[in-house]
Amino acid sequence: MNKELSYTDLNILDKSKSYLLAFSGGLDSVVLFHILIEGGYKFSAVHCNFTLRGKESDDDEFFVKHICKSAGIRCFTKRFDTAKINSKSGKSIQETARELRYKWFEELRKKYKFDSILTAHHLNDKIETFFINLIRGTGLKGLTGMPKHRDNIIRPMIDFKRSDLLAYAKKNKLEWREDSSNAKSDYLRNKLRIKIIPELAALREGFEGRMKSNIENLHSSELVLEDLLKEKLSQITLESKGGRRVIDMIRLRDEKHPEELLAAIMHSIGIQANLAKSLLEHDGSGKLFYSGKFRLLRDRNKIIIEKQSDGKLSGIKVKKVTREISLGSQSLRFEFKEWNRTKIKADDSKIQILDAGRLKFPLLIRPWQAGDAFVPLGMKQKKKVSDYLTDKKIDLFCKENCHLLLSGRDIVCILGHRIDDRYKVSDHTKTTYIIRLQNGNE
Amino acid sequence: MNKELSYTDLNILDKSKSYLLAFSGGLDSVVLFHILIEGGYKFSAVHCNFTLRGKESDDDEFFVKHICKSAGIRCFTKRFDTAKINSKSGKSIQETARELRYKWFEELRKKYKFDSILTAHHLNDKIETFFINLIRGTGLKGLTGMPKHRDNIIRPMIDFKRSDLLAYAKKNKLEWREDSSNAKSDYLRNKLRIKIIPELAALREGFEGRMKSNIENLHSSELVLEDLLKEKLSQITLESKGGRRVIDMIRLRDEKHPEELLAAIMHSIGIQANLAKSLLEHDGSGKLFYSGKFRLLRDRNKIIIEKQSDGKLSGIKVKKVTREISLGSQSLRFEFKEWNRTKIKADDSKIQILDAGRLKFPLLIRPWQAGDAFVPLGMKQKKKVSDYLTDKKIDLFCKENCHLLLSGRDIVCILGHRIDDRYKVSDHTKTTYIIRLQNGNE
Repeated sequence: MNKELSYTDLNILDKSKSYLLAFSGGLDSVVLFHILIEGGYKFSAVHCNFTLRGKESDDDEFFVKHICKSAGIRCFTKRFDTAKINSKSGKSIQETARELRYKWFEELRKKYKFDSILTAHHLNDKIETFFINLIRGTGLKGLTGMPKHRDNIIRPMIDFKRSDLLAYAKKNKLEWREDSSNAKSDYLRNKLRIKIIPELAALREGFEGRMKSNIENLHSSELVLEDLLKEKLSQITLESKGGRRVIDMIRLRDEKHPEELLAAIMHSIGIQANLAKSLLEHDGSGKLFYSGKFRLLRDRNKIIIEKQSDGKLSGIKVKKVTREISLGSQSLRFEFKEWNRTKIKADDSKIQILDAGRLKFPLLIRPWQAGDAFVPLGMKQKKKVSDYLTDKKIDLFCKENCHLLLSGRDIVCILGHRIDDRYKVSDHTKTTYIIRLQNGNE
Repeated sequence: MNKELSYTDLNILDKSKSYLLAFSGGLDSVVLFHILIEGGYKFSAVHCNFTLRGKESDDDEFFVKHICKSAGIRCFTKRFDTAKINSKSGKSIQETARELRYKWFEELRKKYKFDSILTAHHLNDKIETFFINLIRGTGLKGLTGMPKHRDNIIRPMIDFKRSDLLAYAKKNKLEWREDSSNAKSDYLRNKLRIKIIPELAALREGFEGRMKSNIENLHSSELVLEDLLKEKLSQITLESKGGRRVIDMIRLRDEKHPEELLAAIMHSIGIQANLAKSLLEHDGSGKLFYSGKFRLLRDRNKIIIEKQSDGKLSGIKVKKVTREISLGSQSLRFEFKEWNRTKIKADDSKIQILDAGRLKFPLLIRPWQAGDAFVPLGMKQKKKVSDYLTDKKIDLFCKENCHLLLSGRDIVCILGHRIDDRYKVSDHTKTTYIIRLQNGNE
């Protein structure tokens, strides 16, 4: 880590292969561009103009094209109307840009038969990502991001510090463009980059190197854990066919930590891990659980897991007679009651009260999707469900697991969060429809 | 987490049992003391006077005794001459105090048949420990410390924030003692507590709660990983008897990530994990590796691991004819050479040069132990090996794996770090003894 960066450090690359370099024109990608030239690697460059910073964006594009032309490197560029595309998506602008970028890179890779895409991420990016995921709430996997090589993406400089890149750029008298949005758009990352990580680093020499090995250690643990979980899952699985899998509770209970093991297995196949406790506790009552794309049935000594096709995912029906449904680790109870404004206090989270007269049964429960919008109670305008949850500072885990209740095409409420203004009780209400939300462990 | 702290939160405790409360007199333990009273739990208190802060220490002791007397709670107190005990140990003063404390607590627990020892650690302590271990360099295990219950220790308040404790203390008009050494003695912890963690917490609401679940998630992964590793180890073990274990390389190589798996297994049984790579790479050469209390032999399709008794651990012999030894992931080469001051440059790390005439063969290699002392090159006084390594900012992992070369009872050098002044080459030297250290992957 103390030696100078040079092309000989790119030993993950192969001179017989051809690469596509993601080339923003910033310090990191300019350094990688020059190292690739210096090392005699075969590559083309690709630059996205997201047209988000007006002239600055265009100047970046010009700068990148100019460097490529001078060096005789082919350069693909494309303009995106990112703001417009984003406005329809319910995502953050950074998310939209990232998706556009990687989608186009992959198209180019296939069309021109590049072996891999190269990005100029370095160790400090990796450390920042570690802390961002830590702050957002995560498990083992979230702490091990940005591997050197995954799928079709290679990050040849991921073990080098930003200061190594800077030293290389200065020594080789390179020019690069500073992206003004870097300093603004991502509050969390910038606060970490500029203030907090340097403070942590000052506490003990060699912080970056130690974080590198921390992340590597965690990554090893994760790889091993994943392999062993797959093996264990196959051992405790009685039946596995299509999207259906039956887990043997008797074998599971013989394990030393059945709850943690079940949670880890469920997490590894994409099911909310906190369901594990409920699944183990409820005895053979035939209780049904829903989580994301999965439907789980606790059936005596078995857990039956069914992956639902996107068609089926369209929802869980709530009929007029339905009294209770388990949703993830929560349970929902439904009740009709004559309207009597004194008796029940709705608090918009545990108890939600609707005007039953306006509901068209069967209702439907489904996860929210990009584009979903409703009129939050007390407002007149529609608002994106995604924006609503973000504004309410609902964390990522909870956000992913939010479910909607629908009547026809209308969103009646975000379960456990807020009802739609059009379905609130009013002077005209005769009967109310009361939804009570309970956590499994209450 | 938002509700008030009260004795009903101590559901990990049992009114039919009796406890020994570690009672410093600070906010945390005063709050726990009062909650235990409020909840009607059976307990005695124990206070250590480490006599490190003169009158302040004595006042603390008086304060604690006074509270206990008022409440009719038995209180054990003891004075330790901590500074004196520490001066002989080669440890930090905090380390010595902690050892004295827990040793005495455990003696009392056994003598008076307390069921468990209670400490007043809270969520912020746990979060600080997470970051301290992160900064020092760690793996999964280091990030999951301070469980609610381990061995004979229970931490009933570990899920509550310091602010919850403070609110309780204010509401109940409690008095407590501020330990002035808290604010000084542990630079790392205090910097984190006072500055960095609050800054991280300010980045996103609910930071403490999210850190709590991060640590819980990692702890679950660790529990599962440990169980699965034990099972896997038993599957790939051909023979296990006494301190000897034979691992089947053929089965190991069938695994998806053999190196990571072997590293994790070795770590779980207390062997330096970075040996895994060397063990896998060296083919059936019968090469021997040493790591801590273990001796490992790579023998064709087997890895033979022998735990050495403390007697055997006394060392690896280096005879006059010995030319190479593998030590952990490093190799050591030995050579005699006529003294010619121009030819070799010793850099005190990769190459160490000694006056061969002073050495008494066979030499001995062994891990350093508390109390070991030598005269670092260029100095006149003896210095503790432990202090030397700490001053050089050798990280914990490296420190644990440092080995010494001994001639008779003298420490000749800390391998890879520094030679003893008494064994340096001088005008009288005729022959040198040259030690070359190489990492396994160089």
